Amino acid sequence: MKLKFKLAQLNLFVGNFKHNFNKIKNIINQALKDNTDIVVFPELAATGYPPEDLLFKKSFIDDNLKVLKNIASLCKDLVCVIGFVNRIMYYLIYSAVLYNYAAVIHNKKIQYIYNKINLPNYSVFDEKRYFKPGNKTPVIDLKGIRFGLCICEDLWADNSPLFNPSQSGKTDFIITINASPYYTNKYKDRIKQFKELSKKTKNHIIYLNMVGAQDEIVFDGNSLVFDNNGKILKAGAQFKEDIIDFILDFKEKDVQFSNNASSQEASNQEASSKEAEQLKNTEYTLINNFKPKKHTQKSIALKEIKFLPDIEEIYSALVLGTRDYVLKNNFKKVVIALSGGIDSALTTVIAVDALGYKNVETIFMPTRFSSTASYKDAEKLAKNFKVKFSILSIEKIFKTYLHTLSPIFKNMPFNKAEENIQARIRGNLLMACSNKFGNLVLATGNKSEMSTGYATLYGDMAGGFAVLKDVYKTLVYKLAKNRNKKAGFDLIPKNILFKAPTAELKENQKDSDTLPEYEILDKILYHYIEKLLSLNEITKQCNINKKTVKKVINMVDHSEYKRRQAPPGIKITRLSFGKDRRMPITNGYVLK
Amino acid sequence: MKLKFKLAQLNLFVGNFKHNFNKIKNIINQALKDNTDIVVFPELAATGYPPEDLLFKKSFIDDNLKVLKNIASLCKDLVCVIGFVNRIMYYLIYSAVLYNYAAVIHNKKIQYIYNKINLPNYSVFDEKRYFKPGNKTPVIDLKGIRFGLCICEDLWADNSPLFNPSQSGKTDFIITINASPYYTNKYKDRIKQFKELSKKTKNHIIYLNMVGAQDEIVFDGNSLVFDNNGKILKAGAQFKEDIIDFILDFKEKDVQFSNNASSQEASNQEASSKEAEQLKNTEYTLINNFKPKKHTQKSIALKEIKFLPDIEEIYSALVLGTRDYVLKNNFKKVVIALSGGIDSALTTVIAVDALGYKNVETIFMPTRFSSTASYKDAEKLAKNFKVKFSILSIEKIFKTYLHTLSPIFKNMPFNKAEENIQARIRGNLLMACSNKFGNLVLATGNKSEMSTGYATLYGDMAGGFAVLKDVYKTLVYKLAKNRNKKAGFDLIPKNILFKAPTAELKENQKDSDTLPEYEILDKILYHYIEKLLSLNEITKQCNINKKTVKKVINMVDHSEYKRRQAPPGIKITRLSFGKDRRMPITNGYVLK
Repeated sequence: MKLKFKLAQLNLFVGNFKHNFNKIKNIINQALKDNTDIVVFPELAATGYPPEDLLFKKSFIDDNLKVLKNIASLCKDLVCVIGFVNRIMYYLIYSAVLYNYAAVIHNKKIQYIYNKINLPNYSVFDEKRYFKPGNKTPVIDLKGIRFGLCICEDLWADNSPLFNPSQSGKTDFIITINASPYYTNKYKDRIKQFKELSKKTKNHIIYLNMVGAQDEIVFDGNSLVFDNNGKILKAGAQFKEDIIDFILDFKEKDVQFSNNASSQEASNQEASSKEAEQLKNTEYTLINNFKPKKHTQKSIALKEIKFLPDIEEIYSALVLGTRDYVLKNNFKKVVIALSGGIDSALTTVIAVDALGYKNVETIFMPTRFSSTASYKDAEKLAKNFKVKFSILSIEKIFKTYLHTLSPIFKNMPFNKAEENIQARIRGNLLMACSNKFGNLVLATGNKSEMSTGYATLYGDMAGGFAVLKDVYKTLVYKLAKNRNKKAGFDLIPKNILFKAPTAELKENQKDSDTLPEYEILDKILYHYIEKLLSLNEITKQCNINKKTVKKVINMVDHSEYKRRQAPPGIKITRLSFGKDRRMPITNGYVLK
Repeated sequence: MKLKFKLAQLNLFVGNFKHNFNKIKNIINQALKDNTDIVVFPELAATGYPPEDLLFKKSFIDDNLKVLKNIASLCKDLVCVIGFVNRIMYYLIYSAVLYNYAAVIHNKKIQYIYNKINLPNYSVFDEKRYFKPGNKTPVIDLKGIRFGLCICEDLWADNSPLFNPSQSGKTDFIITINASPYYTNKYKDRIKQFKELSKKTKNHIIYLNMVGAQDEIVFDGNSLVFDNNGKILKAGAQFKEDIIDFILDFKEKDVQFSNNASSQEASNQEASSKEAEQLKNTEYTLINNFKPKKHTQKSIALKEIKFLPDIEEIYSALVLGTRDYVLKNNFKKVVIALSGGIDSALTTVIAVDALGYKNVETIFMPTRFSSTASYKDAEKLAKNFKVKFSILSIEKIFKTYLHTLSPIFKNMPFNKAEENIQARIRGNLLMACSNKFGNLVLATGNKSEMSTGYATLYGDMAGGFAVLKDVYKTLVYKLAKNRNKKAGFDLIPKNILFKAPTAELKENQKDSDTLPEYEILDKILYHYIEKLLSLNEITKQCNINKKTVKKVINMVDHSEYKRRQAPPGIKITRLSFGKDRRMPITNGYVLK
């Protein structure tokens, strides 16, 4: 039997039920037209992901159920798998009894609902805050072709009867619906996991992920279809919406499964008892009136799938993350402080790629410490990108601050107080422009700065969104160089790429006065933040002197209060700042 | 048999193992001297609570285990119950297998370890992010007197065999160690719950809570001792460290239990089978070599316990929250912008009560829109409190901003852009003083402002800590009036209490130009934020016109981005902003 699938790798919108319903409706209408047998939508497609505490609003759950009902009414003669939130009742206003469900719809009716078994509650996930886990694994029978259902984390856990080889005769394919956040090269982890699973279980694996960004998280799409022997048949686009159509022919497979099933008899007593236990947790649902369509096309053949190289993958994540944050929050334009440095240059390039050059405005705000080179570099960059470029000297304002503060500061020496005043004047001017013209301020700080606190709170940290918040400085350079390579010329002026980084807040200042060289700094940060190593382990593994490591760690530990007031930014690593890393501010711990 | 207890209601410090160990050691030494039989320390006393992602550091767990070992070595001839973190192993760097444990120590050895069964993962709690739950209930036997153990949430759940009346013969008392965060009148919930439990189970209930503040959470102490019939025998101080010593005589009680046990035989088959199931989960531990001391004192008699009235309870929480945040983060002094309004007045009073007037500095920063009355009120307040009072006019700086921006702003009308510039100049000046002199900036905004976004990001929202973040404006007035009553004179000048609230950022501005009257506003906010009601429900229940309710709700929904960058503040309600309320910024939901 040939089955035609349609995977809807959609960019959904948290809480915007109208947006989500319309997107889903369009796909269903297409599916009805083009003879699709099974259409698949992502995890929590009705609400968008993650809806967070919106889930505690009764009306929010009501509206999501209405969407599901309306979707069901469209699905005549079509099997539709879709994620939504279900509930039994509200017994307490602060803790609703909610479920992360997948519905299997057919003939305008919900034929089966599956409750996610494995609720992630680590990293950026808080699913146990909202949902109660299920314990039953569904097997849906379509005229003898059977499929299992998973939701996201389920496919990473090892507790499903679907994954037990001794049970592999039971299903022909597994559909998994996902809201799987991006980090660098996550597709490799996915391929490794699902390749194994498809081999082990002799199931085709149909993995549908959502796409689009929600606050700090990017969903990278990259849906995958595996045959029942670990080979990739299809892959959805990365960082873009994609509708993935394909036909699978289960005739031969069925025979194969029967063969497989006979070899199962040799299994020992222990395995059978385990099997019996698992069968208890398996729910069979027969979709009686399912009529497979006749497909004359061939089923898809294996093909080589190519994925983006790291650096382009990351760049694409940043572009999508920026675009979705700006547009979904009802802004059209952004404003960026250009300093003539690499961070603001890369932020501008990303913004232009995300929103178009007409929607990006830049302001250069020199102080007495700004070099002519900085001005020239900033101006050149703005010209290369055709973005609006304004100059607001902060010198007069800075002088007035110093004058106003002189009765209090008296003759105390110039220090970080005066440095920060300058950064905060810029923050204030940017925000004033934002307030006046309604453009969103993009902050330009990178992860190396966010980690060490080498940034001014309310100064260069000011803004609605921090594009490079999770990008180490060394990676900033790589991304910038690669963007120039793609452009085929020095889109970002060469001088910006090669000069020594400086905040230009005092005479002859260089980042290296305060921080170790970025190559060393980023190595320490990566091992401390992402690998959670101790002082001694970092010293040894990275071959860096202990004093430097200790200094950096201290800077990280003492900047938590700054990060707490930082704008959100795009997660591109396994451990970003934000929901991913929940450190106390008040913290007496000294790392040994 | 008489047993002497010592409950150590301590102010512990997250991650500061030296601090925590020394506090615990001192109490144990006292206990050894004064013939205590059983000394009790709070939940996670070794690490402080909540340690959050510090728990993912291997060395952090190691250090906590060292503390436990050192504590055990002190406990000769003494039973000690104390909370710590245990682990089996690290199998993944991002998800350690950790346990929230209570140890029962005696004779320098850990006699029993209990794994918390109920892990809260709602409100401010994330315990399922870190811990795996237990499933065994301990009963510890001291020469025939038996006690059960609970950790915090366990005593609020209904799944413990300890709580089954049919099993009430099994234990004489229950010790529960806690890290229970404060919200207004929480003690009433506790008393209700434990009173019932002690009656139902015929157990004395010994409830020890920690005290002190950690970032946004205040632990209010208020430990409680109940007899086995729902009467309160002892209560620990509220918002203060307290060592609670008492003697319980279990002789008579024992007889009582035997009587009870006989009536148990009448229980039906169903109950017995349930009992059998529960017994399976009960672990008995006999502390063989326990030698009760001889106590000639009488056991404590019932007495009437008085608790603070609401308004004083809240005020005390704010004082403790402020003091602990400032001191535990190694600051001595704070600096506050006085505006002549009620919020900055109350913040100053709280700071003075928390830190002493010598550690509080105030700055009045008038603009062209500031009234003479504001200046006089601010000056009077500072004089009443003897706090340092400086004046920095922001007029010149403001003019320079307007001049600098004029090429961009041209002749566009004065609007919120110019209003916010003034607030942000103040933020910058405050932060400059903070940077220069090392004092922490206290932000002065209240919950009504934080809810509606009636505050300037990086302006009046700037600061390390926001004392009134969870205090509605109407409550601000009540707290201020009550503080004056306690002082016996107009400590906060009367004019501040009675004039119409204004931000003074434009000509003749009043809060009521933008917001409904605070009585109405706070009613809507309370029902929307804390009661999670819908637009229609609020309109009906509060009898306020729908347009006003809708306007307020819109303001709340559209200020999430501001709250995300706000400083932490003290949780005093059931639903504060911060870890308690996790709303997406990007949010397409429109409340109906």
